[in-house]
Amino acid sequence: MLPARINPPQRRLMGPGPSDVEPSVLEVMALPTLGHLDPQFLKIMDEIRYMLRALFSTENALTFPMSGTGSAGMETCFANLIEPGDRVLIGINGVFGGRMVDVAQRCGAEVVTVEVPWGETFTPDDFLQKARGQRFDLMALVHAETSTGTLQDLSGMRAVADHLGALLLVDAVTSLGGHTVRVDDWGIDAIYSGTQKCLSCPPGLAPISFSSRASEKLEQRSTPVQSWYLDLSMIGKYWGAERAYHHTAPINMLYGLHEASRLALEEGLEARIARHAQNAARFREGLQALGLNLPVAENIRLNPLTVIEIPSGIDDVSVRKHLLEQAGIEIGGGLGAFKGKVWRVGLMGAASTKSNVDACLSGLKNALNAQQ
Amino acid sequence: MLPARINPPQRRLMGPGPSDVEPSVLEVMALPTLGHLDPQFLKIMDEIRYMLRALFSTENALTFPMSGTGSAGMETCFANLIEPGDRVLIGINGVFGGRMVDVAQRCGAEVVTVEVPWGETFTPDDFLQKARGQRFDLMALVHAETSTGTLQDLSGMRAVADHLGALLLVDAVTSLGGHTVRVDDWGIDAIYSGTQKCLSCPPGLAPISFSSRASEKLEQRSTPVQSWYLDLSMIGKYWGAERAYHHTAPINMLYGLHEASRLALEEGLEARIARHAQNAARFREGLQALGLNLPVAENIRLNPLTVIEIPSGIDDVSVRKHLLEQAGIEIGGGLGAFKGKVWRVGLMGAASTKSNVDACLSGLKNALNAQQ
Repeated sequence: MLPARINPPQRRLMGPGPSDVEPSVLEVMALPTLGHLDPQFLKIMDEIRYMLRALFSTENALTFPMSGTGSAGMETCFANLIEPGDRVLIGINGVFGGRMVDVAQRCGAEVVTVEVPWGETFTPDDFLQKARGQRFDLMALVHAETSTGTLQDLSGMRAVADHLGALLLVDAVTSLGGHTVRVDDWGIDAIYSGTQKCLSCPPGLAPISFSSRASEKLEQRSTPVQSWYLDLSMIGKYWGAERAYHHTAPINMLYGLHEASRLALEEGLEARIARHAQNAARFREGLQALGLNLPVAENIRLNPLTVIEIPSGIDDVSVRKHLLEQAGIEIGGGLGAFKGKVWRVGLMGAASTKSNVDACLSGLKNALNAQQ
Repeated sequence: MLPARINPPQRRLMGPGPSDVEPSVLEVMALPTLGHLDPQFLKIMDEIRYMLRALFSTENALTFPMSGTGSAGMETCFANLIEPGDRVLIGINGVFGGRMVDVAQRCGAEVVTVEVPWGETFTPDDFLQKARGQRFDLMALVHAETSTGTLQDLSGMRAVADHLGALLLVDAVTSLGGHTVRVDDWGIDAIYSGTQKCLSCPPGLAPISFSSRASEKLEQRSTPVQSWYLDLSMIGKYWGAERAYHHTAPINMLYGLHEASRLALEEGLEARIARHAQNAARFREGLQALGLNLPVAENIRLNPLTVIEIPSGIDDVSVRKHLLEQAGIEIGGGLGAFKGKVWRVGLMGAASTKSNVDACLSGLKNALNAQQ
């Protein structure tokens, strides 16, 4: 039997992503599809590049969205920058640092890890001590750890990378558009993000940016990039002046990213980041009033994502089910080592609103009461 | 200055893809985004798998869309099935066979190629002769060569693969939904397609299907799949019963594929394929009446894509520009060795209509007259 036309309900998306999408972004995704070499579409591409540079605070020429989700962005950075045998120093303080190690090793890297407990962040010295004077080709860490809710201070990391002789690679999946991200000022060589977090575009694209130093490394490779689909030396020629066909761009997704970027810049990056901070503060106050514990230290808490310890005696899944079914609110469970131990509540992009904060606090209160 | 909200014009998309998208498909893409683990979304995923199995005419459990365009589907098949040093026999009769070689080599394969001139197709004997009794791990060829407009007869190819001891891999990017594709009956082990051709969904997803034999090869690998993003041993656990998080699925694109698959099956695969044949026949008659030459032999012509020789003295780009600007019709230029020598006109999915055939013939006539 043929399934019926879909009819998805309207949720409040307050998990670790995707976040709520503005009606205007959804609307543009339903506009007529253009060809991937149509002059009108090429103009849209140029505007997307312009806006992504503004969002990343960079002048990098190699700045555009990859045709895959945030994890494709991660793989793009490693696959293009690593040649077999390259030495890579990676910080692990949650799931996504661990994923970096897996991806880098599949690219043939010799990986050394720097680890701090989940829920904590790194000092520049953590990296220096682990390196013990050895040289590395690449140093990588996560700006906003979506699995633990921590924000990594990146100041000082460029100096460490310079000391190691390494390129600096940063995961900004959950920070771009929700926290300050200054690619050029911070000396980041390669960065990737996703569209479904603080940019509030549906999942499916991964904005990336490469510094001129990273681009040089790419040009000077002696081996081909192991992924054809993610090979920036070819994709850059489609997004650049040559317009050389590589793969058919995901047209309507790119419409969505154009509008989402436009809305973010229209609001203003500073105002948007301040809104994320205000709503996160209101949410944390409410959580503490409910007697809930926030395991991450105050000075390194993410604003787009709050991690809450599940009180003893409370059933993780029942609470999330209650919220979804009774209040139409999606929150996330824990990942990896935090599975069953924490909830992860997103206040990202269009979902970072006072109304969502209050609805979630009220929903959580009811769900907790239902178990007592 | 901030760019304006996009306002793409309505074209008739008659290039090599993307093709025109049904309003109903665009509409569902603008429905509210759900979380990737929302029970309502999991139901949509199950329905997509069910419909893709119907479209591929297969019972294969490992049948779902990859989160990237058709080329990501190609890379998925090679990256998952090849281990370094594996011997692969690949047919090249156009751009996409050549791309297979590039992708396979980046996966560490030892590649032997079988080549026939562009615009021609293979006999089973072409492969057997090239193999000269040697064994291969994988044999790969293109069902519908989008660069040349040929349809490859696949009967007899399973027997060849068996003779070589190889898995059989097929590119069905431009045939799925427009020509008969029978994965189980034809003994295909791995197949990939794109959404933006005869399924008439915007580009961004790559339906794939793996036979149990291909799945076994995947399970028995001694090395990890080199692409983390495309690793089916992990992605299969998200699309399967475990629902294990891998990457955030491209939710709204999947809405589109659900609706596009539904419309294709509602029309009926046989009726849809017959419609592609009828409109292609009408188009070819009209082209011949205009005195235009079709370089591909009649018995191996694709219905979703017609390749036309550019008459001598006619300027390729001017004609395409005329069509786009005067008639709102996009057709494609030649690719690779055919660049500047042919036009490629798609009649794919929702764009395969009598109205499009007539509009394109009339537009071509005007554009050609404008140059004489």
